[in-house]
This record gives sequence, C-alpha cells and structure tokens, in this order.
Amino acid sequence: MEKVKVGIIVGSDSDLPLIQETTSVLDEFSINYRVTIASAHRTPEKVKRFIKSCEKQGVEVFIAAAGMAAALPGVVASETVFPVIGVPIPSKSLGGVDALYSIVQMPSGIPVATVAIGKAGAKNAGILAVEILAIKNTKLRTKLKWYKHKMAVSVENKDKKLQKLGVDNYIK
Amino acid sequence: MEKVKVGIIVGSDSDLPLIQETTSVLDEFSINYRVTIASAHRTPEKVKRFIKSCEKQGVEVFIAAAGMAAALPGVVASETVFPVIGVPIPSKSLGGVDALYSIVQMPSGIPVATVAIGKAGAKNAGILAVEILAIKNTKLRTKLKWYKHKMAVSVENKDKKLQKLGVDNYIK
Amino acid sequence: MEKVKVGIIVGSDSDLPLIQETTSVLDEFSINYRVTIASAHRTPEKVKRFIKSCEKQGVEVFIAAAGMAAALPGVVASETVFPVIGVPIPSKSLGGVDALYSIVQMPSGIPVATVAIGKAGAKNAGILAVEILAIKNTKLRTKLKWYKHKMAVSVENKDKKLQKLGVDNYIK
Amino acid sequence: MEKVKVGIIVGSDSDLPLIQETTSVLDEFSINYRVTIASAHRTPEKVKRFIKSCEKQGVEVFIAAAGMAAALPGVVASETVFPVIGVPIPSKSLGGVDALYSIVQMPSGIPVATVAIGKAGAKNAGILAVEILAIKNTKLRTKLKWYKHKMAVSVENKDKKLQKLGVDNYIK
Amino acid sequence: MEKVKVGIIVGSDSDLPLIQETTSVLDEFSINYRVTIASAHRTPEKVKRFIKSCEKQGVEVFIAAAGMAAALPGVVASETVFPVIGVPIPSKSLGGVDALYSIVQMPSGIPVATVAIGKAGAKNAGILAVEILAIKNTKLRTKLKWYKHKMAVSVENKDKKLQKLGVDNYIK
Amino acid sequence: MEKVKVGIIVGSDSDLPLIQETTSVLDEFSINYRVTIASAHRTPEKVKRFIKSCEKQGVEVFIAAAGMAAALPGVVASETVFPVIGVPIPSKSLGGVDALYSIVQMPSGIPVATVAIGKAGAKNAGILAVEILAIKNTKLRTKLKWYKHKMAVSVENKDKKLQKLGVDNYIK
Amino acid sequence: MEKVKVGIIVGSDSDLPLIQETTSVLDEFSINYRVTIASAHRTPEKVKRFIKSCEKQGVEVFIAAAGMAAALPGVVASETVFPVIGVPIPSKSLGGVDALYSIVQMPSGIPVATVAIGKAGAKNAGILAVEILAIKNTKLRTKLKWYKHKMAVSVENKDKKLQKLGVDNYIK
Amino acid sequence: MEKVKVGIIVGSDSDLPLIQETTSVLDEFSINYRVTIASAHRTPEKVKRFIKSCEKQGVEVFIAAAGMAAALPGVVASETVFPVIGVPIPSKSLGGVDALYSIVQMPSGIPVATVAIGKAGAKNAGILAVEILAIKNTKLRTKLKWYKHKMAVSVENKDKKLQKLGVDNYIK
Repeated sequence: MEKVKVGIIVGSDSDLPLIQETTSVLDEFSINYRVTIASAHRTPEKVKRFIKSCEKQGVEVFIAAAGMAAALPGVVASETVFPVIGVPIPSKSLGGVDALYSIVQMPSGIPVATVAIGKAGAKNAGILAVEILAIKNTKLRTKLKWYKHKMAVSVENKDKKLQKLGVDNYIK
Repeated sequence: MEKVKVGIIVGSDSDLPLIQETTSVLDEFSINYRVTIASAHRTPEKVKRFIKSCEKQGVEVFIAAAGMAAALPGVVASETVFPVIGVPIPSKSLGGVDALYSIVQMPSGIPVATVAIGKAGAKNAGILAVEILAIKNTKLRTKLKWYKHKMAVSVENKDKKLQKLGVDNYIK
Repeated sequence: MEKVKVGIIVGSDSDLPLIQETTSVLDEFSINYRVTIASAHRTPEKVKRFIKSCEKQGVEVFIAAAGMAAALPGVVASETVFPVIGVPIPSKSLGGVDALYSIVQMPSGIPVATVAIGKAGAKNAGILAVEILAIKNTKLRTKLKWYKHKMAVSVENKDKKLQKLGVDNYIK
Repeated sequence: MEKVKVGIIVGSDSDLPLIQETTSVLDEFSINYRVTIASAHRTPEKVKRFIKSCEKQGVEVFIAAAGMAAALPGVVASETVFPVIGVPIPSKSLGGVDALYSIVQMPSGIPVATVAIGKAGAKNAGILAVEILAIKNTKLRTKLKWYKHKMAVSVENKDKKLQKLGVDNYIK
Repeated sequence: MEKVKVGIIVGSDSDLPLIQETTSVLDEFSINYRVTIASAHRTPEKVKRFIKSCEKQGVEVFIAAAGMAAALPGVVASETVFPVIGVPIPSKSLGGVDALYSIVQMPSGIPVATVAIGKAGAKNAGILAVEILAIKNTKLRTKLKWYKHKMAVSVENKDKKLQKLGVDNYIK
Repeated sequence: MEKVKVGIIVGSDSDLPLIQETTSVLDEFSINYRVTIASAHRTPEKVKRFIKSCEKQGVEVFIAAAGMAAALPGVVASETVFPVIGVPIPSKSLGGVDALYSIVQMPSGIPVATVAIGKAGAKNAGILAVEILAIKNTKLRTKLKWYKHKMAVSVENKDKKLQKLGVDNYIK
Repeated sequence: MEKVKVGIIVGSDSDLPLIQETTSVLDEFSINYRVTIASAHRTPEKVKRFIKSCEKQGVEVFIAAAGMAAALPGVVASETVFPVIGVPIPSKSLGGVDALYSIVQMPSGIPVATVAIGKAGAKNAGILAVEILAIKNTKLRTKLKWYKHKMAVSVENKDKKLQKLGVDNYIK
Repeated sequence: MEKVKVGIIVGSDSDLPLIQETTSVLDEFSINYRVTIASAHRTPEKVKRFIKSCEKQGVEVFIAAAGMAAALPGVVASETVFPVIGVPIPSKSLGGVDALYSIVQMPSGIPVATVAIGKAGAKNAGILAVEILAIKNTKLRTKLKWYKHKMAVSVENKDKKLQKLGVDNYIK
C-alpha cells in the first residue's frame, strides 16, 4: 500500500497540532496520506484543486478539520463522492458546539461522517479512515483488530496496576 | 433605480415562503432583486454563476438563507466582496441554533451580516439591504425614515386602541 | 452485488419510519441490506449476534439509529472493525441533542461516523454507506456521481420553475 | 459488614482522582467496595465479568463514572438488576453536558440513577450508595443521620465564624 | 410485602398523568405506594409531614417529580436519609432542561437519583425504586430479572415481525 | 390605594394575552396599574414618556415584557430608579432562552428583576410587584399572606381529592 | 435608617467573595444588612430561623445566592412575603446556567427576582435591594439617582480619556 | 476619503482591546473612524448624541460591541437608518451566547448585522464595514479584492511551508 490513500485538509495552520492525532494513527497503520492547509472561505479553489489532485493519486477517504462556522468538511463533501470525515475543532467561546453543528447537520444528499470535538475526534478520524480502507484490505483489517486488542490490553494493564496499588497510591 | 440591486439565494424551494418576508420589504422600497434556488453543497457552481451574473447586473448586496449546517451565506461571502446578509432558517430538531452558529461564527476575513432566526430575520434582511443601499441614495434614506416612522405610528395606534379598550377587550 | 452489504440496527420499532429514509437510498443503489430491531440496553446479546451474523454474510458497513442516551451506535462500534454510521433520533424534550452528543462524542479509539439528527441524517447515512462501499466499486461510484448530478438537476429545475413563476406564484 | 457491597467502574484511569471523592465517603461509612478500570467500548467483556464477579461477592450497588458519550453506566445497568449510579465526568469542550445527557436520558426499562457532573456528583454517588444500602441496615441509617448532622454542624460553625468576623475578615 | 414501600410526591396535579407511568410499574411488581400532591414552594410543611408519615409507615424509597425550578426532589432529599429519585418534568419553553439541571445538579452531601426527562424517566423511576427494594428481597429480584427478560422478548418479537414483514409493511 | 402603582410595558400587542396573567394578579390585590404598548427599538421615546408620566402619577414598580433580543426591560431600568421586573416571552425558535439571557444578564449597575419565561413568569411578575409594594403597606402584606395561604389550601384540596379518588380516577 | 433592612443568605462560605459585591453596594448606601451562611439542603431549619429572625428585626428584602441546583432563593421565597432576590453563582462545568434555571424558572405563585450570573448579578442584587427600599424613602431615591449619575460620569470620563489618548494608547 | 465614515461604540473600556481588531482593519483600508465609550444602559443619551454627531460628520456605518445583555447595537439601530454592525463580546460564564442572542435576535423592523463572538467577529466587523462602504467606491472595492487575495496568498504560503516541512516539523 504505497499510494496515498487519505487526503487531509485543515482550515488553518493552528489546527495542525490537533491533526497530528490523526496522522499518528495513519502512520501507525502505514497508510500514506497528504495534508494541506486550505480554507473553504479564503481559498475555495485550492480546496477543489487538492481534492481533484488527491483523487488522481488514488485517495479514497478525505478528512477535514475546521472550527467555528466549519464549512470545510461540507464543501469537501460537495466536491467528491469519496467518504468525507469531519473533525469539529473547539473554539474559545462556544467550546466547539458551533463547529459540531456546522459539520454534522448536513442537508440530505451530502453526508459528512462527523467525529467528536477536538483531540478524541481527531484520533478517531484516523481510525475511521482506516476502518473504511480496511473493508477490502484483509491485512489492514487484521491490524485493526490487533489495534483494538492493544487498547483493551492497555485498559487491562492499568486495571492490574490499580488492583495492586489501590486508588490512593495509583493517583499519587 | 431600475437595475437589480439585491441578489437573493435560498438553498431549497421550501425556504421561499420565508424569503417572501424579504422580497415584500424590497418591493415596498421599489428595489429590484433576483431570487434563485441554489445549494452550496448540491450546486456550488450554480451559486458562483449566480453571484458573477448578479455582479455584472449591478447587484450590490447579497442575501442568503439556509438551514441546518447553513454553509450557503459563507460560501457566497467567499465569492464576492459585496456585503452578504445571512438568514438562519429554523430546523425541526434544533430550532435554528445550528443554522445560526453556521452562519454567524464565520472565521476572520470573511464576514456574513447575520440576522435573526426565521421570519423576523428574513424581514430584517430586507431592511438591512435597504439600509446598505441607502447610504448613497438620499431618496431611499428618506423612505427608510418614513418606514421607521410608520412602524412607530403603528405601535402608537395599537396603544391608542389599548388605552380605549383595555387589555381584556383588546385581546378578545 | 448480491451479498448483503449493510447491516442496519434500530433500537425500537418506532424508529422504522425514519430508517426507511436510509433503506430507500440503499434500494435506489441496489445495495442489499438487513434491518434488525435490537437494543443496546435491553438485548445487548442480540446486538452482538446480529453483528457477527452480518459479518459472516459479508456486511461491510453498519448503520445504527437511536434516540436519547443513544448507546447503540457506540456499542456496535465496540464489537466490529467495520465502519459504523450513527443516526441521532430526535426525542420530544431535547430535540435530539441528547442523542447527538451520545453518538458523536465517542472516546478516542472507537469512532462512530455521525450524521445529522433525524430524517436528513437517516438519508445521509444511506448515502455515506454507499460512498464507503463505492471506494472499490467503480460502478457504484459512477452511480453516485449520477445521483449527485440528479440532485443538482433537481435544484436547477426548481430554479427554472421559480424564474418562470416568480416567488409569489411558486409558493401558491 | 465485611463483604464487598459496592462495585465501582471507571472508564479510564484519568477518572480515578474524581472517584476518590466516592471512595472516601464509602471509607467513612466503613463500606467495602471494589474499583476497576473497564471501558464500555474498549473492554465490554471485562465490564460484564466485573459485574458478575461483584454480584457473586455480594455487591448490591454499582457506581459507574464516565465522560463524553458516557455509555458505561447504561451498559452496566443493562447487565444487572441491582441499582446503578452514574457519575457524568466533565469533558473539556462541552463541560460535561455530553456525559450528563448520555447517562441520564436512558430509555424506559433500564434506569441509571444519575448524580451531578464532576466532583459533587462523585461524592453524592457515594452517599446515595450508602442510602440505598442503609434501607435494611439500621446502623448505617443512624450513621447517615449523623453524617447529615455533621454537615449541618459544619455549616453552623462556618456561620458562627462569619458572625464573629464579618464578611471582609472571613474571606481575607 | 403489604406495607407501603414507596412515597411519591408530585408538585402539581398536572403531573399525575406522567406519574401513572411510575405507579403502573409499581403495580406490576405489587409494591405498595402512596402518592401525594405537595409543593416544595407552596406547601413545604406538607412535604415534610408526608415524608415523616411515610417513614413511619415503612416507606424506604421516595420519588419526586417536578418541572421548571424543580426544587421538590432536593427538598425531599434534605428531609430524609432514604434514597430519593427525581423525575424532571418537561416545561413548554425549555423542554425540561431547567428541571433536569435543578434536580441533578445537587450540591455535595444531598444526592438525588435523577432519571430521564418526562415519560421514560417516570417509568424508570418506578423500576429504579424496585431495584433498590429488591436488594434484600430475592423474590422481587427474580421478578425484576423476569421483567427484563420480558422486555428483551418483546424486542425479539418485534424483530421477528419485522423479519417477516420487512420495513415497508411493518410500518404501514 | 387609588393611585396607579404599577406601570406595565409590552413590546407588542401580541404579548397582551400573556400580560393578562400579570394584570389579573394586580386586580386581585386591587392595585391600580397602567398598561402600554411601546417598543424599545421602534418607539424608544414613547417608552421614556410613559416612564416619566408613570412616575408623576405615583408608579413605584415597572413591569416590562419582551421576547427575542428583549431590550425593553433593560431600557426601562436605565430610565428609572424604581425597581423594574422583566418577563421573558418565549419565541418560536429558541423557546425564550434568547429573551431570558437578554433580560437577566444585565451589566452591573442596572438591575432587572427577572422572572420565569412565559405564563408563570407573567403571573409572578404581578406577585413580585405586590411583594415590593407591600413592604410599607401592612394591609397588602396581610393580603399576600392570605394569597399564599389560598395557594396552599388549593394544593391541599387537590391532594384530598387525589386521596379519595386515586391517581387513575383523578386524571380520567 | 439604623434598622437591618436586608437579609443575605449564601449557601456556602465559598460564595462570600462574590457576595462582597452585594454588601459593598449596601455599605455605599448605608443600608444595614445581615449575612448568614445557611443551606437549603443541609440546614433548611436554619434558613427558616434566619428569615423569621430577620423579619422581626425589620428586614424588608432578602438576597439569596446559590450555585448548581440553586434551591436556596426559592426556599427563601416560600417562607416569606417580602421580595427575594436570587443570585446565580457560576459552577465549573455548566457556567452557571444550572443555577440560573434553578433560580429564575420558579413556578407561578412564588417569584424570585433573578439577576445576572456571578459578579455583575451580585452587585445588581445590592442595587435592586436599594431600589426596592427607596420606594418610600426619598433620601435613598436621591442617592440612587446620584449613584446612577456617578456611573454615567465614570463612563464619560473614560471616554474623555479615550478621546485624548486614542485606542492604542488607552489600552497600553 | 478623509471624512469620518465609521462610528464605533463600545459599552466599556474593557472592550477596547477587542475593538482594536476592528480599527486595525479600518486603518489598513485608510478609512476614518471615531471610537467612543458609551453605554446603552448607563449613558443612553450619550449614545444618541454620538450617533447624531457621527451622522453630521458623514458617518455611514456604525459598529457596536457589547457583552452580556448586549442592548447597545440594537439601541444604536433604533436611532439611525444607517447600517449597524453588532459584535458580541464573550462573557465569563456564558461564553458570549448571551451577547449573541441579545444582538442577533432583533425584532422585525430594526436589523443589526451580527458577526461572530469575540476576536474574529471584531475583525469581521471592520471588513463588513469596508464592504458596505465599497459599494460605491471602486477604489475601496479593488483594495478589498486585494485584501482577500492576500489572505489567500497567506494560506498558500503556510501550505507551501507545510509541504516542505511536514506536519511534525511545522508545529515544532
């Protein structure tokens, strides 16, 4: 799987730290991706060019992260028939509810696969992209099962530590 | 003032009854306008074509009404340097808060002049457009003052009726 | 494409009218699907059995619709590595915000692809499922482009009618 | 009362400091409890195993704390007929409203006894568990009355201090 | 179990239809209960008298339903050490969020076991009361398991009907 | 007490049915009042004139009811040093939260005594006005105690009926 | 005016810094007041005793400040016929909306005069109390006018400074 | 364009840092403006005087910024027929939703062109004012196009940097 499979768009460079949560998941699954900074409102043409260029390269899933009146994921969805995942970025005053509503409440016809606000959502956007790509890729699917297994093991290990130490010592 | 001055876009024909509140204000001020149905997500190119065509005809203010993840007003604003007025349309489940946030919370650089959710907002979009056009049009400004005066008189008349009838008889 | 490709779970039979929006999209794309009534809280084992049985049949995308403390989509996501689409169903008192938060705010590790509250979301869940299945199915992808085209044409036709009739006659 | 009476589940070790509010109440009433880290989404089987094991040990009340799309308390409630208390943990972006709705808005048939978001709720979960256990335990009930009395005395003492010092000196 | 075990208080007679959801559950489990109309704000003394009288009769769980600034459940909780279940009643303008916050956000020291807004919550209040009473009553616990089983069977039956009829015929 | 004691302002004649809740309370206490229709935004001068005229007549409390961006109560408060009671009127899309925030969140220096949204608030505005006027009027204070007593008796009577009929017969 | 005129109740000593905003206003108007710490839920009897004792001393206005499920102001209102002012105290997770709803949404019959959340509200509670007391106290009314005048002058002075310095220098 | 074209009003000097976002935009476009501190509630007459004086000087657009029960923009709009732009300022407890609702939900007849909460809104208020003034000023319109172009170039440059450095190095 050497081709670029995921196209990621952030509306501003201030969103890059958050999107690292996404890219580190993709790295873990050895999935190639492209990241671009492009704005639905400031550089709409660039958004389109990126999508077309990605599609030519073989991209099969798009991820778009945006805050406030987060039009980006919807605009991407209007320009492609590949699935688009939207990540709402929290804003200072409304805590990300504005971005969540702007991304998830898409009118019928143009869906955006919305994930949680902020960090957890950015990570889950990566995992969701892997799940979508894994449909026809048994290797990737096996890896996903292993990934989920590791998460479970990590919970188990923390619990073992807790059973040994007790609550008070654990959190010291 | 025979040229078309206001370009109005609604995302769906179900928004037309609401936008009548806007057009009836413009009619009252004898301002020419065009109305189109075009969707930011379903027909993005049509939105652009309408804007360019409007600008050629002399349109100086745009009004865009949309519900849910109401991207339309922001998309219009990204394609023109003329002022864009956004009308949030109420949806069934969230009462229009989704549209309000999607329209008003524009990122810095691309403003949308947002008005109230629903009917009152649709009417005010018309009045705001007139106020903007009236800046360099003294006749229109005089009309606006007269319009405001009539509103005040209407309040006064209702109050006179109230003073005559009393609350109980008034609302019978 | 004769195999069942989409597994749909609703928490209650009162959600079936809404899910018809989803199934009619899948019908339009000739995608086979299964629908079951199963509750994350009342019949958790049934949910699991359905997922396992679906996976054996070749299901590649799950859709789960639920209202209130809508745990169903997350529970499905915890039991499979195939992508899970969640549809928030509006409740009487909170308008579906409870279901939306319960579905979209998944903790990192277990994503649910969330769509809009209610009818528009139910339809978009169908389209999103098609988009995911179309990644490796060029025929389906061509159909999707055609579907989007038809939506655009429908908007265009409404607009043509509007240009002919004007706002007042259109909404009569 | 040497048997374990309360089973406590947190979704993540980051919730342990909060749950200390709960355990310190139980300690104060000399009620034995078990705490485990287990996730409704990452380790659903572990959640079930814990519940079954607790029930065998004589646990009569469960407490589950979770944030975001907090499915854990509901999942616990679906696996037991003992009362389940749910503690919503605040998240960064939505302040815990997401967890509150996900916990309290349970569909009819599977109740979760929900307490306040965060610290106050965690403490009250402990007290509520004691109240439930005290129904058939007159000693515990007497202790509870004493506990409430001490709370009242503590308020009285603060007020006495206030009457002596005045507002300005009190808060210095 | 002939003694009165549950004391139910509603703030207004307009809440009685809702509380029928609660009493029909208790009837189903043959649990005796008392219902009174008493207001935290209009008849605070009556609330207290009811609680004391209930306690003398052997009541072990209280259920209080209230809307708007729903102080009733908290006031009951401040007067007893038996567990208190609070049911938020939806109001016209705020959909019950006001009652939910007023009931669930209790300060530390005085818990109220809060259930869902409206009908589902009223029913769950009954079930939660049974769960609490069942802790030391094996017969009641067996009945509860049976009750849960019946709920599961009802879901299974609906699903069987669905599998036979298909979605379209089911909802006709 | 023949002088006009309460000045009531509503922003629109559509608010009159609601304000009847207020006036019927004042009628019950034989308190004279004036009602006017005047708008903070459409007839600001009329608002001022009404206040000044009321003050000359001996008005000692103002009540202002408004919806949406409910500026009226605050504007009244800025023009008088007599206490101003604000009643938020529910709007279609936001349920009155807009009016509530616009009335209660007054900046420091200019308080508005805010009551509940809608009908209950309108009635309470009347009672609050009576409470304020009763401070130096022992007769009025006695009446208030009687009024509260009657409310309590009404609750008691409903409860008596309930004890006689039971829940099921009561609500038939 | 040497008698105690205002009775102030806070639910917790952590609310005292906020209530200083209230007391400093009363100090400025030389109005005597009493402050007590008493909890609607932990020390309901103490609340009542304070109210009765205040009424005997000549208190004519009550101010109650509380956070979360802020029952205190409503409980005070249920025990007196003097006007009660409620101050919502912000909580960590819900920003004070919980307290606001719990205080302002009083059922019809028992009003609480609600002011803004937090600091501004605490100050305004003091001013509102003065406005109420000033109804029959011309000296106090003159002082209030002077107080309002000083506020206006302070705004004027800041503006003069701004006109001299310009925005950039002002905020340096 | 040497005349003063924009009149800016802030309710408090604490809003000046935010309004610098507005004035720096106007400076960039060499548009003359006046800024004043004036309060709708504390100095209503000053607000009016400022508006009248601005209108005499040739001001054609007003910008008003306010927090909490933000009446200022609406009050300005009620006193002029020139377009009024409203900037909601975030408050501590409600994050600016209070100001947003108080500004955007204007009743029909008196529109306020509302922009985003806080910093982004303050900047956009400046740009919207320029857009309005540019309608009849081709030079200004050309500048606006250039301004938008620069924004796009800035996005492009950030993206170029990103393509060179990659996500990890970019955010170091």
